[in-house]
Parts: sequence; C-alpha cells; structure tokens
Amino acid sequence: MTTVGFIGLGQMGAAMAANLIKGGNQLKVFDINKDAVDNLAAQGAIACSSAAEAVSDVGFVITMLPNGALVRDVLLGGGGVAAAMPKDALVIDMSTIHPLETDALIKDLAVQDIEMMEAPVGRTSDHAVAGTLLILAGGTKDQIARAQPLFDLMGSETVDAGGPGKGIRVKIINNYMSIALNALSAEAITLSEKIGLEFDTAMSVMSGTPAGKGHFTTTWPNKVLAGDLSPAFMIDLAHKDLGIALDLANQVGVPMPMGAASRELYNISRVSGRGRQDWTAVLEQVRDLSGLETKA
Amino acid sequence: MTTVGFIGLGQMGAAMAANLIKGGNQLKVFDINKDAVDNLAAQGAIACSSAAEAVSDVGFVITMLPNGALVRDVLLGGGGVAAAMPKDALVIDMSTIHPLETDALIKDLAVQDIEMMEAPVGRTSDHAVAGTLLILAGGTKDQIARAQPLFDLMGSETVDAGGPGKGIRVKIINNYMSIALNALSAEAITLSEKIGLEFDTAMSVMSGTPAGKGHFTTTWPNKVLAGDLSPAFMIDLAHKDLGIALDLANQVGVPMPMGAASRELYNISRVSGRGRQDWTAVLEQVRDLSGLETKA
Amino acid sequence: MTTVGFIGLGQMGAAMAANLIKGGNQLKVFDINKDAVDNLAAQGAIACSSAAEAVSDVGFVITMLPNGALVRDVLLGGGGVAAAMPKDALVIDMSTIHPLETDALIKDLAVQDIEMMEAPVGRTSDHAVAGTLLILAGGTKDQIARAQPLFDLMGSETVDAGGPGKGIRVKIINNYMSIALNALSAEAITLSEKIGLEFDTAMSVMSGTPAGKGHFTTTWPNKVLAGDLSPAFMIDLAHKDLGIALDLANQVGVPMPMGAASRELYNISRVSGRGRQDWTAVLEQVRDLSGLETKA
Amino acid sequence: MTTVGFIGLGQMGAAMAANLIKGGNQLKVFDINKDAVDNLAAQGAIACSSAAEAVSDVGFVITMLPNGALVRDVLLGGGGVAAAMPKDALVIDMSTIHPLETDALIKDLAVQDIEMMEAPVGRTSDHAVAGTLLILAGGTKDQIARAQPLFDLMGSETVDAGGPGKGIRVKIINNYMSIALNALSAEAITLSEKIGLEFDTAMSVMSGTPAGKGHFTTTWPNKVLAGDLSPAFMIDLAHKDLGIALDLANQVGVPMPMGAASRELYNISRVSGRGRQDWTAVLEQVRDLSGLETKA
Repeated sequence: MTTVGFIGLGQMGAAMAANLIKGGNQLKVFDINKDAVDNLAAQGAIACSSAAEAVSDVGFVITMLPNGALVRDVLLGGGGVAAAMPKDALVIDMSTIHPLETDALIKDLAVQDIEMMEAPVGRTSDHAVAGTLLILAGGTKDQIARAQPLFDLMGSETVDAGGPGKGIRVKIINNYMSIALNALSAEAITLSEKIGLEFDTAMSVMSGTPAGKGHFTTTWPNKVLAGDLSPAFMIDLAHKDLGIALDLANQVGVPMPMGAASRELYNISRVSGRGRQDWTAVLEQVRDLSGLETKA
Repeated sequence: MTTVGFIGLGQMGAAMAANLIKGGNQLKVFDINKDAVDNLAAQGAIACSSAAEAVSDVGFVITMLPNGALVRDVLLGGGGVAAAMPKDALVIDMSTIHPLETDALIKDLAVQDIEMMEAPVGRTSDHAVAGTLLILAGGTKDQIARAQPLFDLMGSETVDAGGPGKGIRVKIINNYMSIALNALSAEAITLSEKIGLEFDTAMSVMSGTPAGKGHFTTTWPNKVLAGDLSPAFMIDLAHKDLGIALDLANQVGVPMPMGAASRELYNISRVSGRGRQDWTAVLEQVRDLSGLETKA
Repeated sequence: MTTVGFIGLGQMGAAMAANLIKGGNQLKVFDINKDAVDNLAAQGAIACSSAAEAVSDVGFVITMLPNGALVRDVLLGGGGVAAAMPKDALVIDMSTIHPLETDALIKDLAVQDIEMMEAPVGRTSDHAVAGTLLILAGGTKDQIARAQPLFDLMGSETVDAGGPGKGIRVKIINNYMSIALNALSAEAITLSEKIGLEFDTAMSVMSGTPAGKGHFTTTWPNKVLAGDLSPAFMIDLAHKDLGIALDLANQVGVPMPMGAASRELYNISRVSGRGRQDWTAVLEQVRDLSGLETKA
Repeated sequence: MTTVGFIGLGQMGAAMAANLIKGGNQLKVFDINKDAVDNLAAQGAIACSSAAEAVSDVGFVITMLPNGALVRDVLLGGGGVAAAMPKDALVIDMSTIHPLETDALIKDLAVQDIEMMEAPVGRTSDHAVAGTLLILAGGTKDQIARAQPLFDLMGSETVDAGGPGKGIRVKIINNYMSIALNALSAEAITLSEKIGLEFDTAMSVMSGTPAGKGHFTTTWPNKVLAGDLSPAFMIDLAHKDLGIALDLANQVGVPMPMGAASRELYNISRVSGRGRQDWTAVLEQVRDLSGLETKA
C-alpha cells in the first residue's frame, strides 16, 4: 500500500483522489474547503488540517490546484510542504499551470533534494470520476515508471511527453489548440446560420473535409510536413476565399476576429513570396515569423 | 448524348471537362488560354474561339472561372453567353465566387428567362482528375436532378445544399473554416516546436482530443447544441489557459495573432456572465454578437 | 459663369452644391431622391430628371455618391453620363470609393476622350455647409488648376495629393488611421474607466504624450524617420508594457482586440532582432512584413 | 538634507538619482551592477553593497526596477528592505509594473507598518537626465506632498493621479495607448508608402485631422462625451472605409492586423444597432462589451 498526500480537492482532484483510494492506496488529503476534505474522509481518506500535515510520511505528494502561484505557495511557501515531506517522496503536480512555473518549481525543489514531476490531465470531470483521464506525464523515465501505478488508477492512458516539463507543455499546446478552435468554430457556424444554411448541411460537408477533420492528418502529412510546397490549393486562392468570407460576414453582421487575423497571416505569406505555394506553407510562414529555419 | 458548353479550363476545369467527355458527352470548350482549349480538343472536345460560340446549341453551360467578375462578364457582359445560349439550357457555375454575386447572377439571368444553379466543388485537383470531387449543389430539386448525371462524372458525392445560392454558401463556410484552421494549426505547432516538444508527441495527443478532432462532433453535440451550458470545462478556465499559452508564446517568440483574437472572445464571454458556463458557450457568445437570439 | 452638372445630393453633396450656387455657378443637379433635387432647385439649381440630363452642356461633372459601383454606373453604365456630357468637360469624383475603382474609371473614361480627376473631401457635414471642407485633389496640375475655383467655394484648403489617383489614396489612408484610432482610443479609455481612473486624469496625461499627440510629429521624426533606431524606449519594454495592459484588461473584463493584435506585432519585432531597438522601429518591422527594404 | 535609499540604477534610475544628489540630498545607492553603483558614488552617493544597506536610516526608499517580481523581492523578499528600513520612511516605487502588483505591495507593506506610494515616470531618458520627467503620482495627498520636493528634482511636472495605485494605472493606460498607436501608425504609413503616396503628403493631411491629432480633443468632446450620438460621420461609413483600406492592403501586400481587428469592432457596433450613430459611438460599444452601462 502506497501513502499519498493529495492537496487540492476540487471537482477534478476529488474524483482523482477517490480513485486512488478505491485502488487500495492510503490517502492523506487537504483542501482549504473543509467540506471537500470531509467528503474524501467519508470515502476512506485521512483528513488533514494543513498541507504540511498531509505530506508527512508519504511516498507521493500530488497537487491539483487552480494556478501556479498556489502550487508554489503550497510547496515552497506558506504551505510548507517541501519542509514537511520525506525527501524521498515524489512530488507530482497535476495542475495546469504555466510551464515556466513548472520548470522553476522542479529546479527549486531539487535544491532541497526533492524530486518533482508534472502530470497534467486531459479530458473532462466525467473521465476523472471514471478513472479514464489522459495523463500527460512530464518526467524522467524512472519518475514516470514510479508514478505509473497511480496514473493507472486515475487515467486510462499515459503519454510520456518526453521529459521533465514536457507534460505541461503538451497540455498547454493541446488546450491552446482546442480552445482557440472552439472559438473559430463558433465564428464559422454563426456565419453559416446567418446566411441561411442548415446546421446539418454545414456539419455534414465539413465533417468530410479539413474544416472538420483538421489538417494534422489530412493536408499536412504529404505536403508541408513532407517538404512539398507544390500547390494542391494555393495560398493566393485561400487568401481570396478568406476575403470573400470576411466580406460576407461584414455584410451580414457576424464578427469574425479570428478569421480577420488569419487573413493577415495569408497576406504576409503572399508578401513573402508564398502566394503560389500550397496553403499548408502557412506553417512555414509562421515558423519563419518565429525565427525558425524554413523551406524556401 | 448531352452537349455541354464548358468555359474555363484551368487546372480544375480541364480535368472536369475531360471527365465529362469520357462519360460520353459532347463538349464545346473555351478558355482565353488557347493551349488549354487545344488540349481538350485532343481529348475529343470541340474547340471554340469564344464563350458565345461554345454555348450555341447546348443543354448545359458550365463555368469554372477564377472570380465572380469574370463569371459575370462571360455570362452577361462581353462574353455574350446569355444572348447566345439556348433559353432552355441550364447554366451551372462551378466557380468559387462571392455568394452575393451568385445571387445576383441567378436573378439577372432569370430576367432573360435563363435558369442558373451553382455547384462549387470540394477536394483537390487530384480528385478533379479522378472524377471524385465533392459537388456542393445549390439549386432547385429539379435543377439538381437535371445536372446529376454530369455531377456523377465529375464527382463521387453530391450534397444538396438546400436551395439556390446555398451551394456556394456552404462552400465559402467550409473554406473559411479550413483555411483559418490551417493558420491556427500553424500557430499551435510552431509554438510546440519552439518549446521543445516532438512533433509526434504533440500530434498524438491532439489527435485524440478536440484539438485534433474538432468540436462539431465531440464537445458541441451534448453541450451547446443540446442547450446544456453546465460546465464540463469552464469558460473561465479556457480563458486562463489561453492566457498562459499566449504569455508563453510572447516569451519564446511565436506570434499567435489568432490565439490573441480568440482570447478577447473569451474575455467578452466572461464579461457577458458566461465565465462559469461550459466552454462551448462561446458559440452562444458569437451568436449574441451577431444579433441572434441566444440561450441565457 | 461656369455650368456644373452635380450628381449625388446627400448630406454632403447637397451642401457642396449649394455653395457652388452661392459662388455664382449654374448648377444642373440630379439625385434619385427627388426631394433633394427640389431642395437644390429652390436654391437656384436646374432640376434634372436624370444624370444624363444634368451633364448636357456643362463645363464640369461632379459626382458625390455612396460607393464606387454607383459612380461607375452613373458615369459609364445606365447613368449614361459619359455619352451625354461634352467631351471637354472635366469629371470630378468627390465620393470616397476604392482607389482601384478610381484608377479604372480614369482609364475607362480616357478611352472615351473624357478627363476625370478625383477630389474626395475631409472634415464633416458642418464644414460642407460652411464651405470649409478639406479638398484632397488627385489629378494633373492642369486639372487641379482648372477645378480650383470650384474647390475654393466648397473648401477652405486644397491639398495637391501628387497626381491622378493620389487624392483618393490619401483620403483612404487618412480615414483608415482615424477610424482605427477611434476604436483604439475606445479600448484605452474603457480600460481606464474600468480600473477607476478619472477621465480627466487619463486625458490630461495622454494629451501631453504620444498617446494623445500621435507619433508622426513626436517620436518618429528624430528616430525611425531619421534612420536612428537607438532606443529612447526599447521594443522589449513596449512589449512588456503591452503585456501588462492586456493582462489587466483580461482580468477586469475589457476586450482589447486591437491591443492584442498590436502585441503580436511587437512579438514579431522581437523575433526579428529588434528587441533592443527604439520602439519606433515597429515601422521598419511592418515595412519589412510588406516586402519593403528596411534598415537593419 | 534628506537621505534617500535608491535601488535600481539603470539608464533611468541613474539619471534620476543623480538629479536628487544635485538637489542636495544624501543618496545611498544600490544596484546589482557594481559599475552603476560606482558611477553614482563618483557623483557623491554612498555606495552600498546590498539593498538592505542602502535603506538604513533613510527618509525615503526609491525603487526603479525592471519588473514587479524584482520590486517585490527587493522590498519583501531576499532584498530585505522592509525589515531593514526605518518604519517611518516612505517607499516610492517609480518602476513600471503591473498595477495589481503595486496594490499587493502597498497592502503587504502596510502589514509591516510601512507606507508605500508609487510614482512611475513618463517621457524619455533624455528627460531623466534633464530632470524634466513627468511624475505620475499615486498616493495619498500627504504622501505626494511629502515626496514633492524629490519629484521636483527629477521631473518638471507631477500629476496627482487620484490616489494609491492610480499613478501606475494611468501610466499603463498611457503606455498602452501610445505603444499600440505606434504600431497602428506603422500600418497606415506603410500602406501609404506602398500605394505611392509621398510621406509628406500623408503627414500633412493627417496632421490636420483626428488621424494625427487623436480623438480625445477633436471628435469626442462634442459627441460621445457629450452624450450626442447623432452622426457627424456614421459608423456604417467608417466600417465601409475600413473595408476599402483593408481590401487595398490585402491587394498590395501590407499586413494590417490592427486595422483588421478594428473592423470587427465596427462590425459588432453595426450588429448592435449603432450603424447610423456617430462613429464616436464605438466608445459606447467597447464600454458595452466591457459590461458598463451605455447610452442607447
């Protein structure tokens, strides 16, 4: 039986802790919300009245908190975890925080001879309850192996993101993409509605094209990712079609700030001489604007 | 045997005309590029030296041209097609042009007792060659039925978009979404590269989430589309994560104008009292900004 | 006495025509709004029932219409002005239309041996009434000299914009800058209000800095315009301060899409190695993105 | 003679400290850059080897540091200033940091019975040398009065921003506006250049309109600020002109992301029923998006 100090019992954390208990681990739990602590105690956890208390004599310290400042405060500040926990326990931060904060925490804990890895999670609170989260593990191979039995109770899939700090990085990238895409989808569907298309028609068409399936597995692999920028669909035409869509949106009254921003990226691509390249060359253009070496 | 006047023999048009010939139709073709005309003639088409010549005694007039001004000029301006074609032939514009130009063309041809429908195409030039395009048909049921044998030679799938002008509308929506998404994907992957993630790691994570699969068939159906805005993932948290990603991008030097624009949409959503609603409520927010009636 | 055919009697046009009458000219006026025509007739104009009628036997044809399509239609389309007017009369388009439409009109009228210049106006309807508009003249020196007596009745200042098509170009640039600046000002003042500043405090501070006075005559002349990019205020610091403002705006709930877009321009500037250059180097950055040759 | 502990001797700080010395004050200075300390010592300051040393027995502690984390660390963290300084000395933070950090510092120092005010500065390093900075004072009337003799040595003008935390707020607003405006100006002038206008022509026109003079003292006072939204220039027309400018920019290849963002604000304004209101109503629109009560 492993003893785990678990700090942060929100909607996600409470469900994750419960699954660790069900899996046969001894949980010592703390949250500033006393009700949440009592709730877990009713499921078999040891209720603690401070973070420091929750980490005495444990093999793992798990934090699941709303932001990086809180994680830092719990571990290295007023929470006193670093001082109170066994030096050979492994800290696993499962919160979604700023990657540079993760890096700093790993470094600052190392000074105190404490190992930390991060393992933010994907999917929803329903998955947390079901123990089927996606675990995005950032750590050494040894750390991940050590934490794996716990991950297997909270999630159904663990991704080794490639090293310390990489777990939170892939989480942030994934969230960036899905959150921004959500807003972009809203722009497209609202325009669709306002120009009189049936939702099902728009859906069924887009579900069969990169509009619905994304580009990562459709247009990109054989073109920009393969170094082939010969046009299947030219940047110039993509730019023209964006112009039509934005003109239409401005005539019928649908604000599309993301589309407007994207048009300027295609504008830049054309100025850079990519007008007759394949539209996937916009990746090379953004890479170029980011100072990365690009294909002509 | 049907006789078709085909005007516009670019990369797409030439392949589409060739498939109509292969299917046993008589093609009369015109393009300002004489080589393109000769090429089709070598495949059995009747080469014409003007658009007007190409539409005499035909059952269908198909236009596949770069922009709406050209389509108008060919049909109603200097091209003289409307005057030269049989009144009972059906005009099918397969170009991608501004939907309001399509509407105007349909109306202006009707004044001359000529019927026009539109049928822009999806997919790539490879599909045009293979005769497996996606046909986005905008017209009456009768018009679509009449054109169907031709569509079946050029494409493998015909979508009835819901009436005249709806074919070009769904095309523009689909292109808007896929073109803007292409640029957004470039932002995400460039940031991913610049913070040291392996492309395959980012890909494999995103291919299993809405980041890669889109929202139309994942997060939306049971939430915003079902009128349920209780949070699986809160707007407030989505806004927070966007802030982290943008801060990171600005620290490491990846311009993400689309992400920046999307953050302000979430900002507006929060001001509007949606902070604790599900992130799919961003659709309701954009609908609200567009003057559509929304759920609270 | 000069005879002027004046087409387009909206809020601006009516006032301008009235001032031409007061100045002793014979006006022949037309508008699709019959009331507007009657109104001018009551002031001494000859009411005409068509544009063509209004331009017979005139020395000048002035158009003041809402958009370029209308100007074209009046001059070269159904309006029949080009056919009906004397070949030696000068067409002066004073509308605000797309510069490329202006170019095309000048060219197409030249084919019919008709000279056209453009002279869009600045300032407001009050200035139109007072005869104190700003005339942005685009034409040859001869054309401007010929029209000058008319301009002097409608405006208090004429700018020779540098040749045909330049008048409408400087108008569009000026409007772009003032319209976008209006929205940016709204972002800044709304944030100011939301964080509890008195409007007068914000105003009085900004009225003494480039925030209120603009950059053209303050920061730019001795730095970027003089080729000196040594930092009075570094791009890196400007980028940092924008980040603070946007973070604050996102915390207190003020959407600032323009600020968000500008931050990405500074982001690009830093990636391009301009972080320690003067902030006015952002001009060089935008010039670079536009394919213009820039200073290192 | 007043004794001042001055921490942070960068380009700005060094010049400001020098002026305090010239004014007859005793300066105790510290910076992590030893050369900067020596430099001030050569001008009469007492060189200190730590921040804590620099604040012993002083009447004022001035911080002029690159960011808020450093200010916090100097005052309340490793720098040890709060512990080492006399309780009755006044802390004046003159750095440009996040206003919420300023608020937190004031509060956290108050717990230790230490008063802090902020006084970020405007203008350039040349003004710092000349002692003609703009002092944006945030503090109680008493605090500002107490610090005024020092401010008078460093600056030529002190603005009482309205209370604690208001000085840094007005600084951030001013910087936001001037920094974003700088980028917007770059968009306008680059388009101007690319469409062939002489810089002087564009300049001279804009210097006489809100494009160059700003809106705060021109279009706003008699319209939106006076509650009058009757149109001198309609939102609908402003939106139209922005569309022309952006179309032109996309045709000739000038990326204008800020203009593109602003167009969507006008788009939203029109959807909200403001199309025929004065263009200054965009302020009301942004206020509305920010949850502030607006005029109809």
